[in-house]
Amino acid sequence: MSDASQVQPYDPTVRSHVESGAEEFLGRLVEWLRIPSISGQPGHADDVARSAQWLADELSAAGFPTVEVWPTDGLPSVFAHWPSDDADVPTVLVYGHHDVQPVDPLELWSTPPFEPVRDGDRLRGRGSADDKGHVLMHLLGLRAHLAATGRRSPAVHLKVVVEGEEESGSPNFAKLLQERADRLAADVVVVSDTGMWAADVPSLCTGMRGMTDGQVDFHGPDVDLHSGSFGGAVRNPLTELARVLARLHDDDGRVTIPGFYDDVVELTDRERELVARLPFDEADFLATAESRAAHGEKGYSTLERVWARPTAEVNGMWGGYTGAGHKTIVPSDAHAKVSFRLVAAQEPLRIQRLFRDWLEAQVPDGITLGLSFFGDGVRPCQTPLDHPALAAVHAAMSRAFGVDALYTREGGSGPEADLAEVTGAPVVFLGIGVPDDRIHAPDEKVEIPLLLKGAEAAAYLWADLAAAGRPALTGR
Amino acid sequence: MSDASQVQPYDPTVRSHVESGAEEFLGRLVEWLRIPSISGQPGHADDVARSAQWLADELSAAGFPTVEVWPTDGLPSVFAHWPSDDADVPTVLVYGHHDVQPVDPLELWSTPPFEPVRDGDRLRGRGSADDKGHVLMHLLGLRAHLAATGRRSPAVHLKVVVEGEEESGSPNFAKLLQERADRLAADVVVVSDTGMWAADVPSLCTGMRGMTDGQVDFHGPDVDLHSGSFGGAVRNPLTELARVLARLHDDDGRVTIPGFYDDVVELTDRERELVARLPFDEADFLATAESRAAHGEKGYSTLERVWARPTAEVNGMWGGYTGAGHKTIVPSDAHAKVSFRLVAAQEPLRIQRLFRDWLEAQVPDGITLGLSFFGDGVRPCQTPLDHPALAAVHAAMSRAFGVDALYTREGGSGPEADLAEVTGAPVVFLGIGVPDDRIHAPDEKVEIPLLLKGAEAAAYLWADLAAAGRPALTGR
Repeated sequence: MSDASQVQPYDPTVRSHVESGAEEFLGRLVEWLRIPSISGQPGHADDVARSAQWLADELSAAGFPTVEVWPTDGLPSVFAHWPSDDADVPTVLVYGHHDVQPVDPLELWSTPPFEPVRDGDRLRGRGSADDKGHVLMHLLGLRAHLAATGRRSPAVHLKVVVEGEEESGSPNFAKLLQERADRLAADVVVVSDTGMWAADVPSLCTGMRGMTDGQVDFHGPDVDLHSGSFGGAVRNPLTELARVLARLHDDDGRVTIPGFYDDVVELTDRERELVARLPFDEADFLATAESRAAHGEKGYSTLERVWARPTAEVNGMWGGYTGAGHKTIVPSDAHAKVSFRLVAAQEPLRIQRLFRDWLEAQVPDGITLGLSFFGDGVRPCQTPLDHPALAAVHAAMSRAFGVDALYTREGGSGPEADLAEVTGAPVVFLGIGVPDDRIHAPDEKVEIPLLLKGAEAAAYLWADLAAAGRPALTGR
Repeated sequence: MSDASQVQPYDPTVRSHVESGAEEFLGRLVEWLRIPSISGQPGHADDVARSAQWLADELSAAGFPTVEVWPTDGLPSVFAHWPSDDADVPTVLVYGHHDVQPVDPLELWSTPPFEPVRDGDRLRGRGSADDKGHVLMHLLGLRAHLAATGRRSPAVHLKVVVEGEEESGSPNFAKLLQERADRLAADVVVVSDTGMWAADVPSLCTGMRGMTDGQVDFHGPDVDLHSGSFGGAVRNPLTELARVLARLHDDDGRVTIPGFYDDVVELTDRERELVARLPFDEADFLATAESRAAHGEKGYSTLERVWARPTAEVNGMWGGYTGAGHKTIVPSDAHAKVSFRLVAAQEPLRIQRLFRDWLEAQVPDGITLGLSFFGDGVRPCQTPLDHPALAAVHAAMSRAFGVDALYTREGGSGPEADLAEVTGAPVVFLGIGVPDDRIHAPDEKVEIPLLLKGAEAAAYLWADLAAAGRPALTGR
C-alpha cells in the first residue's frame, strides 16, 4: 500500500466511455430500482425474484456468456461468469446484493421509495446506494473497460455473485457459497457494498467487524413478590443481572470475559497511522451519533474503537414492572440482549462459549440462568494491508478520483468473511457510498458523480489486476 | 412486655357474648362484603360510597352517638365516636379501611368475589380479611364488652376512623388526618389491618417498614444507534444504568448511598430475641416466596431482613430492544423503577434527597439523568416495646387465645405512621389475619374462629386500657 504513491493520471478514453454511457446506465438503474425487492418482507418475495431475473437479463445483455439465477431455501442470488480470452489471468469475484431494506416509515420519504427521482446530482430511491447502484456500476465500468481497451472479453476472468437476502442477515448465503464453491473459485473477491470517508475523500474499506449476539435470562422467584414482604431476603434477578452486566467491562472499558482478547491482533503502528490520517472530527462524529460524549476502551481513538476493537453491548434489557406509575415488587425475571462486535481472528462460536462460561460463573445462588444465541454469528473480515490486490484497488480509486485514496474500515458486518473462507482469496472493497446516503432510512440516495467514478475505478481495476498477474495475487 | 407473663384466664361472660353474637355478626359482615368497594377502579366509586354509608349505619345501630361520613378529594372515610361515661379514661382511636382490592383474575376465584360463601370455618369473599372482617370484629367485641361489664358506654372514649382508599395507597388520608386532627385526638391508636404469625401462634405486629420509590431515566444518544457503526465509542445507557444499580449494594448486601443508614436504629438484643422466638422455618419461607435461596444483608436473619432492615430494590428495568429476536443497537434510553423500604427513623423525603445526591454523583459524562419519585413515600412505624398500651394488647390477645402471644413486624407499609404523627399517640396492632388468607389474591378468606378471638381480645382491651389509666398511657 502506497500512501506516498504517485496517483496515475486518469485515462481519457475510459472516462469518456463512462460518461457517454452514463445516461443509459442511469436509465437502467432507475428501471431496476422500481422493483421493490425487500427481502425482509415475505409479501415482496416475488419482487426479489423479479429483481434477480431483471439483473440476470441485464448481465446477459452486457455480454456475460454464463448467467444463472441460483435458488436458495430463501430468496435467489444471481451468478454470472465472463471468462477472459486470456488464459492465465486472475479470476475476480464481484459481490453485491439486489435486495433492499424495508421503507417504513413511508411518510418520511420526500418521494415514493420505488419511484426513483433524479434531483441534481443525486438519484433518490430505495436501493440506489445500497446496493443496486453499486452492482450496476460494475456493468458501466466493464463496458468502459472493454471499449477503452478494444477487448472482446474482460482482462480478468470475471465472476459476479449478487445475493438476494443481505438485508435479512444472509441466512442462506453461507450454505449457497459452500454448495457452489467450485463455480465461485476466485483469486480476488471484490465487495461493492461499502462507502468512502466522504465525497471529497475517496477511501477503501479494509476490514469489517464480526458479530455475535444472544439473550440472557435470569430467573429468580417463580412469581413477582411483594417487595415489602420479601424485599431484602431473596435475590432480585434485575439487581443480579445489573451486577453481572456491570462486570462485563472493567474501568478501562475492556471486556472482562477471560480469553475474549486472545484472538484480537493489536493494531500495528502502520494501521494506526492510516486511521489517524483520516480527517476525523470528533464533534462531527458525536453530532452524527446524536451523543454528548465519546467513551470507550482506554488507549484507543474513537475510530479505532468502532473499527478495530471488539465490544460488548447491551442492546436491550427488561424485567419487572415497566408500566406507568409504580408496583413495588421483587421481579421474577430479568432479561438482556447482548451483542459482541469482533475483530481480527475472533471466532463468533468461541466467543459464545467464553461468554457462556463466564456467565455461568457469575450467576449467584437463587438465580437460574438461561442463555441463547441468535445464530452462529458473523466472523470479522480484514484485507491484508500488503496485498497486491489492495494496491490495485487503491491505484484504481486514486486514479478515478485524482487524489491519493485513504483507508477506512467498517464497524458492522456482512457475509464477507464467508466469501473469504470459501474462495480462500483476499477480500477487497470497492464502494462509493457516502455517510449521508441514508441507507436503511427514508430518502436513500446515491451521488451520481460518485457512481461514475466507481465505474471508472472498476474499469481500471480489471486491467491492473491482470497486469499484477495471478502469481503475485495468489502467491502461487 | 411480658414474655414470661402469666396468661390470664378468659372471661366466660365475654366469650359467651361473643359466641352468641357470632351468627348475627357474620350475617352483617356478609351483607357488607356484597358491596364491591374497590377503591382502585373508578367505576366502583359509588360502591365505595355505599360501603361507607353501610358502615356508618352499622356504627349508629351499634350505639355510637356520633357517626360521620367524611368526604375527601377521593373516596370517603367513616368516623365514629362513643365517649365513655367515665371522665378521665383514655381515648382510643381504632383504624381500619372499608375499601378492597380489585378481583382480577376473576377466573381464579372458586366463587364470585362479592357473593360471600361460608365454607366450614372460613368465610370467603373479597374484603373478608382485608379489611372489613377486622373492622366489623370491633363491633362484636364492643357489644361483648358492654354486655359483660354491664356498661352503657365503653370503658374508654372510643373513636373509629375507617378509610376508603387504603388499597390505593391512601392518597388523601394524610390530608384528612391533618384537617380533622382535633376530632381524631387520642391517647392510643389501635390498627386492625394486620395478621398473626399463624392460626395457632397468635402474635402482635409491632412495626412496619416505610417506603419510598421512584424512577431513574438514563438518556444517552438521542436515537438508537447501530452497534456496528457506533458500538464501543459512546456510552450505552443500559450498561451505565446497570453499573450504577450494581453499585447500589455492596458485597455484604448493604445499601451504599451515603447517609442511608444514619437514622436506622440497630436492633436491640431484646428485639432480636423476640424475632428468634418465632417458629420460623426458612424452607417454608422460601416455598412461600417460590424462591430457591435466601439472600440479603450480611449479619441479619431472614426475618430481621424483611422486618427490621431497610432495603433498595429494582422493581423494574427496561430499555433498548426488548422484542422477539434481535436488534443490535446502542439504545437511546434506559429506565429503572427503584424502591426503598425504610425502618426506624428513616424519613422518605430525606432518603429521596440522599438517593438523588448519590445518583447525580454516579452519572457518567454523555448520560443525562432523569429522576422522579412516586409521591412523598410512607414513613416507617414502630410500637415502643415497653409501652403499656402494647402490654394491654398483648394481655388481651393472650387471654383470648389462651397462649402467650408473640411479637412480629411487617415488611410493608400503610398510613400508620401518619396516624402516629397526627395523634402523637403510640400505634398498636390488633389483627387476626393469617398468612394464607390470600389477601389481594383470588379466594381471599378469613378464619371465622380467629375473627371471634379478635372480637374477644378487643372486648378485653377496652377494659384493660381503662384500667391502665390515662397517665400511664400518655406519660402525662
